[in-house]
Amino acid sequence: MMSSVGVFSLGASEGSSEKIVINVGGVKHETHKSTLMTLPGSRLAQLVDTEKPLSELFFDRHPEVFTHVLQYYRSGKLHCPTNLCGVLLEEEFDFWGIRGTDVEPCCWAAFRRNKDAVEASAQIDPSVMENEQSSHKAWQPKIWALFDNPLSSVRAKVIAVVSLFFILLSITAFSLQTHPAINPHQMYEVSADNSSENFIENVSVLPRVLDAVELVCLIWFVFEFVMRAVSCPSKPRFFMNVMNIVDLLALFPWFLRWCSGTYCTKALGFLHVMRCIRVLHIFSLMQHVFGVRVLKHTLRASATALCTVPLILFSCTLIFGTMAYYTEFNYIDSSFTDIPSSCWWAVVTLTTVGYGDMYTVTVPGRCVAILCAMVGVLLIILPVPIIVSNFIKFNSLLKTKYSMARKKEKISVHTASSS
Amino acid sequence: MMSSVGVFSLGASEGSSEKIVINVGGVKHETHKSTLMTLPGSRLAQLVDTEKPLSELFFDRHPEVFTHVLQYYRSGKLHCPTNLCGVLLEEEFDFWGIRGTDVEPCCWAAFRRNKDAVEASAQIDPSVMENEQSSHKAWQPKIWALFDNPLSSVRAKVIAVVSLFFILLSITAFSLQTHPAINPHQMYEVSADNSSENFIENVSVLPRVLDAVELVCLIWFVFEFVMRAVSCPSKPRFFMNVMNIVDLLALFPWFLRWCSGTYCTKALGFLHVMRCIRVLHIFSLMQHVFGVRVLKHTLRASATALCTVPLILFSCTLIFGTMAYYTEFNYIDSSFTDIPSSCWWAVVTLTTVGYGDMYTVTVPGRCVAILCAMVGVLLIILPVPIIVSNFIKFNSLLKTKYSMARKKEKISVHTASSS
Amino acid sequence: MMSSVGVFSLGASEGSSEKIVINVGGVKHETHKSTLMTLPGSRLAQLVDTEKPLSELFFDRHPEVFTHVLQYYRSGKLHCPTNLCGVLLEEEFDFWGIRGTDVEPCCWAAFRRNKDAVEASAQIDPSVMENEQSSHKAWQPKIWALFDNPLSSVRAKVIAVVSLFFILLSITAFSLQTHPAINPHQMYEVSADNSSENFIENVSVLPRVLDAVELVCLIWFVFEFVMRAVSCPSKPRFFMNVMNIVDLLALFPWFLRWCSGTYCTKALGFLHVMRCIRVLHIFSLMQHVFGVRVLKHTLRASATALCTVPLILFSCTLIFGTMAYYTEFNYIDSSFTDIPSSCWWAVVTLTTVGYGDMYTVTVPGRCVAILCAMVGVLLIILPVPIIVSNFIKFNSLLKTKYSMARKKEKISVHTASSS
Amino acid sequence: MMSSVGVFSLGASEGSSEKIVINVGGVKHETHKSTLMTLPGSRLAQLVDTEKPLSELFFDRHPEVFTHVLQYYRSGKLHCPTNLCGVLLEEEFDFWGIRGTDVEPCCWAAFRRNKDAVEASAQIDPSVMENEQSSHKAWQPKIWALFDNPLSSVRAKVIAVVSLFFILLSITAFSLQTHPAINPHQMYEVSADNSSENFIENVSVLPRVLDAVELVCLIWFVFEFVMRAVSCPSKPRFFMNVMNIVDLLALFPWFLRWCSGTYCTKALGFLHVMRCIRVLHIFSLMQHVFGVRVLKHTLRASATALCTVPLILFSCTLIFGTMAYYTEFNYIDSSFTDIPSSCWWAVVTLTTVGYGDMYTVTVPGRCVAILCAMVGVLLIILPVPIIVSNFIKFNSLLKTKYSMARKKEKISVHTASSS
Ligand SMILES: [K+]
Ligand SMILES: [K+]
Repeated sequence: MMSSVGVFSLGASEGSSEKIVINVGGVKHETHKSTLMTLPGSRLAQLVDTEKPLSELFFDRHPEVFTHVLQYYRSGKLHCPTNLCGVLLEEEFDFWGIRGTDVEPCCWAAFRRNKDAVEASAQIDPSVMENEQSSHKAWQPKIWALFDNPLSSVRAKVIAVVSLFFILLSITAFSLQTHPAINPHQMYEVSADNSSENFIENVSVLPRVLDAVELVCLIWFVFEFVMRAVSCPSKPRFFMNVMNIVDLLALFPWFLRWCSGTYCTKALGFLHVMRCIRVLHIFSLMQHVFGVRVLKHTLRASATALCTVPLILFSCTLIFGTMAYYTEFNYIDSSFTDIPSSCWWAVVTLTTVGYGDMYTVTVPGRCVAILCAMVGVLLIILPVPIIVSNFIKFNSLLKTKYSMARKKEKISVHTASSS
Repeated sequence: MMSSVGVFSLGASEGSSEKIVINVGGVKHETHKSTLMTLPGSRLAQLVDTEKPLSELFFDRHPEVFTHVLQYYRSGKLHCPTNLCGVLLEEEFDFWGIRGTDVEPCCWAAFRRNKDAVEASAQIDPSVMENEQSSHKAWQPKIWALFDNPLSSVRAKVIAVVSLFFILLSITAFSLQTHPAINPHQMYEVSADNSSENFIENVSVLPRVLDAVELVCLIWFVFEFVMRAVSCPSKPRFFMNVMNIVDLLALFPWFLRWCSGTYCTKALGFLHVMRCIRVLHIFSLMQHVFGVRVLKHTLRASATALCTVPLILFSCTLIFGTMAYYTEFNYIDSSFTDIPSSCWWAVVTLTTVGYGDMYTVTVPGRCVAILCAMVGVLLIILPVPIIVSNFIKFNSLLKTKYSMARKKEKISVHTASSS
Repeated sequence: MMSSVGVFSLGASEGSSEKIVINVGGVKHETHKSTLMTLPGSRLAQLVDTEKPLSELFFDRHPEVFTHVLQYYRSGKLHCPTNLCGVLLEEEFDFWGIRGTDVEPCCWAAFRRNKDAVEASAQIDPSVMENEQSSHKAWQPKIWALFDNPLSSVRAKVIAVVSLFFILLSITAFSLQTHPAINPHQMYEVSADNSSENFIENVSVLPRVLDAVELVCLIWFVFEFVMRAVSCPSKPRFFMNVMNIVDLLALFPWFLRWCSGTYCTKALGFLHVMRCIRVLHIFSLMQHVFGVRVLKHTLRASATALCTVPLILFSCTLIFGTMAYYTEFNYIDSSFTDIPSSCWWAVVTLTTVGYGDMYTVTVPGRCVAILCAMVGVLLIILPVPIIVSNFIKFNSLLKTKYSMARKKEKISVHTASSS
Repeated sequence: MMSSVGVFSLGASEGSSEKIVINVGGVKHETHKSTLMTLPGSRLAQLVDTEKPLSELFFDRHPEVFTHVLQYYRSGKLHCPTNLCGVLLEEEFDFWGIRGTDVEPCCWAAFRRNKDAVEASAQIDPSVMENEQSSHKAWQPKIWALFDNPLSSVRAKVIAVVSLFFILLSITAFSLQTHPAINPHQMYEVSADNSSENFIENVSVLPRVLDAVELVCLIWFVFEFVMRAVSCPSKPRFFMNVMNIVDLLALFPWFLRWCSGTYCTKALGFLHVMRCIRVLHIFSLMQHVFGVRVLKHTLRASATALCTVPLILFSCTLIFGTMAYYTEFNYIDSSFTDIPSSCWWAVVTLTTVGYGDMYTVTVPGRCVAILCAMVGVLLIILPVPIIVSNFIKFNSLLKTKYSMARKKEKISVHTASSS
């Protein structure tokens, strides 16, 4: 057909008219033999070079990818189609003896895209996903699911609500104990004036009620911790988990108090804060909601870039604090007495909180304040793109991963039931 | 053609040179028979295995998809082209006896994308869209459109403006009544000093004017509610709608006042807030603007993820409030007297409002405040990606859905008029 | 070839083995005749139905699109490839007698995408773009470019800087005149105490200097306005432009002052604000920077959706203001004396400004404040996705439009110079 | 095959039935000769026009691109496929004698996309990337890497930490010196009352300790600067770098102090701020973290558009400041005494800092404040899309560039080791 009269032939290398047909998976590509010699190290160049004259070559490979491989021979530039997976392209390029690094810069994104997605997808820890499947054997995983995954059953939901109720109850009781009217230390001071004696009588019952409430909460927390510790699938991982250590430490203030018999809230301040960290349990309960899981991955992936924000804040605080000090300290009655307090003003302005306890009054001081506030506004915005781009990435990754996992599960269930 | 001299053949399985031509919709694919045996359960493997030797197979299917199916036989990896619809791929894979779950992880996104879009598109409730078509039959839908959709006609626009005017008028009248100079309760106190008596005389007319204004507004609201209730297409849905219940409740304070004869604003405080919720009617009027509809869908889809923000705020408030209390309470004249008021400071700082009624003064207290403000800034940013990603999704979904719906309408109108 | 021994044939309709070859632009598609009868109204069904038996049809059309058209006959579902332009698909579908509305919902986005881009691109007003080309004929456009486009030449840059200098100078002079130490009205009051007489002597020269400065600025502004008015390409458009009207009105306070001879700043307050609006000229000068132009288009396109934010703010202000009033007004020394001032507090909290002049103190009042601040934070975030999605759209649209326009210009210049 | 009986032929130009086969790289395209005449200047039209009658043409070019070229002849509209690289399309269009500017507006984005990516990628300065490779020859680059790139080795990390420690130490020492209790100037004033004499005795040791600390820091900074200056690869570039000039200037206050012998902090205020700018060294140390590098490119690319934000802030400040002044100055005890201080209020409100030192109290003044705060909130949001779109762009660009660079490196190392 090709040697028929009236066929006009034209191409990149017009001199050598000797053509060759390369049949790749049924699709026939035609080119001049000289074209194939342009890439000496590649598979085709070696075949054409060494063997006897051929009119047709057959390869059982992907025909569409070969179009682009052949174009590389013709133009010397390796472009990648965006509709084919980069991983597939790399496999085929390997077969044809072409290096992936020869891809033109304009097509790097197309060549890398899927590979990057696979690498990012691999970062998503499988431990979170396997939770959903392995809970139908012995009593241990059942109890674990009961206390750890509120979405696993109705009973787990009830336990989650009860747990939340006790956390909020204990925090409320604890917060109220610091109130001047209830706190026993301050009560003595107040009792000096006789007019409010009746009120004190009335109120003095409350501390005892709060003590009882705390005891009940303590019993629940100990019970819950023991149940979780006993039923957890891996002891070392359980005691390495920060949340569980916090849980254990949060029990100390209660025990210390019951042991010593005296109330020493103020001295054990640090331990009491621990109790409030129990509130973070709400998140461990919400971890099974999809959006929260995406947020978690987003924050983990953004951590390195996000830590620049405190650094910039710290640097700006020092610079603006020092500048404000030197512009304001000469002013009579200035509250900018020293650089550390000047830095406090700078932080309050940079975060746009602006308590109003300190503010610049001189003209250069106000210029510094304006700059400071503007940098602060920019600072708030800076982490937005990092979080946005990571969220969009992980949202699509997790959505894809879950829908595929659910599909696979269905098939395996279907296969198991049909056999 | 394939058995001609000078044909060199090379492929994945070089040993068995027996080739087979698979004609799919006119496009001829060639491969070795042994290649087709690599996936034993699939349609092609069964055909090649059981039947008599064949040199060509014809299938009336999509030729482009088969390229990728055949590549699966060759390389054992199922990649998906991104230019073909995932739904089409699944249909074809089903025909060829290949499971969608065999798709390589790098191509999951390409395989799922359109299916996810269809599922998301199905979430968009059609009830909002059908509004635009069904309004040209009886008097009932006409009146309903008049009061419910301001974009339906010029008269509807006039009624919307009138309705808005009465809402604003009644709220203004109601707000002014609480002003010390007008409020009758406080007037008696003021009237004790004689110097401002003339002013009171002058002002005392105003309450009566405001009463008259309220009466007029009341008449309009009752009229509007009755018209809407009578003309609504579905009674149960109308009375289940939160906005309509609010409307009904918002009428109570007026009736109570006119019945009892005395003015008891302060006791009925809760009911008076109801009146202001009428302002939300502005949104029900704006619901027919495209951008607002996208925002509505965005907020609805982001609701689950957005509810983490109050939770984080609540947790951080407790933690930072407690920390600030323990770092500040020893300071003389400290305003951090108890944990609840310390938590108030924490919220004011976390939201970066910073009233300045409370602020930390000790060095550790200020460190807590800096941490608190930084977490607050991060907290403000956290919901941004959720809203952004959902908005971009629903914006394109709704835009596509509307333009296709409008096109279909045009065609149906055209067909109706031509026939 | 198709009737050879050993050919196995299988497809959607296995019964009728009569095959047909459809040659579209050189690519041969094969199918069963019965397949083509599934869509009775289409071009192919009519051809096969009415004419004499054919074994091959030739069409000089796009071969790739026909693959998808034929698949529609086979499966009854019309999918669109994403790599082909939606406009091209529509043209080809029209030829084959297939309606665009038959496209499956999963492929609507692929079918509409390019059309939406074209429609959005058409919104970009060409008037801004033609500015760059038409400035090389008479004196009029040259002077217009000199005063209107600072990027057109070095002289235009100098004039822009001079204009900016005079604007800033006049505003500085005007601002200083209101300072208590300079303002002649307050000077008399100050001069009562003799101790600072020497200072007054010294200062009293300043008002005269400021008057002289204002006169010089006035002369420049009149000159600039006349030059622009004379050289503008279209008089009606020039006087319809808001900025030019503001310019004209901003000249009034000066003239009024020079006419009347007395200084009546305070009475003419409104007109003096006009002067400051001249500052907006900076933007008309920056309009030729690419990023600013994108921002302008973004804001214009986002306007409808952005106007919901003030509406939500207004509604929330009323609701939270009323709620705060009813929770706070019983408290002694409360600053929440009436609903209007309560609404002021609500706005200050919603925008997270938090001056601290008013703040809630009761427990329910603080709960309202917390809700209010949280809604405020959400409110700030709400317009972000609208602006982001529009910016990304217009950024790519304008970038593409400019690069294509520049390329066309180069070619036309090249063609003009070569001929 | 084409002249066989029973072949029906139909196309865009049905009149001239003379067909031509164009074999492009093995793929045969068929069309009517008249179709090729529609674009007179192109390569195919010239061939068909001038030469003798041909039935087949062969071109050794990309077959897929030619499908779209031929479609241009058929329909007169040039559409681009999105799966092929725009650069490849342009090369092929050039061969076929078609201008890139003939591409339809709907396909401009597809045609330009990759070219824009290449241009943006070229902006990324290679100097930052080459750092990672050239550090294994002489002592000079080794020392340079030691002091400049903390990620290059463990020793470099130690030096970075030491450097950071000295920066923080010197700033702490410097900040403490301004504290009233330590500052020698204020000490004399305090010493007047005898009661705190013992405390002063105790404290007066501290200034001497701080002096010693400063001396040690000074020695380290001089050592570090000398090492960096000696080992830097390019002297001119080193002394042109802003950070290094700041480093040098930051040494001055110390020298001036040690020379003069007296402490003149307040007079040399400006120079002392320099010391704090040393804190920015943290960023030069973090420059080698990926996320920070993306942020840096993002900010550089967004600079032009971001500078509109201060401009808008400046304009709004003037406008709202003037408006607030004219609405508030009549109020007794108003803090809005003049326009400059009114502008201070406007800035504090626009940035949502809201110190509370000034706030409007009249009704029109509060309306101005509400407008001002709302514009402020919008202003904060405005730069978000610019940063987001640039970050997403540079994130993918840099990620692609790095992964390709790392791959190339691996191959070169592999090749070097194998040879
Ligand atoms: K604030
Ligand atoms: K504030």
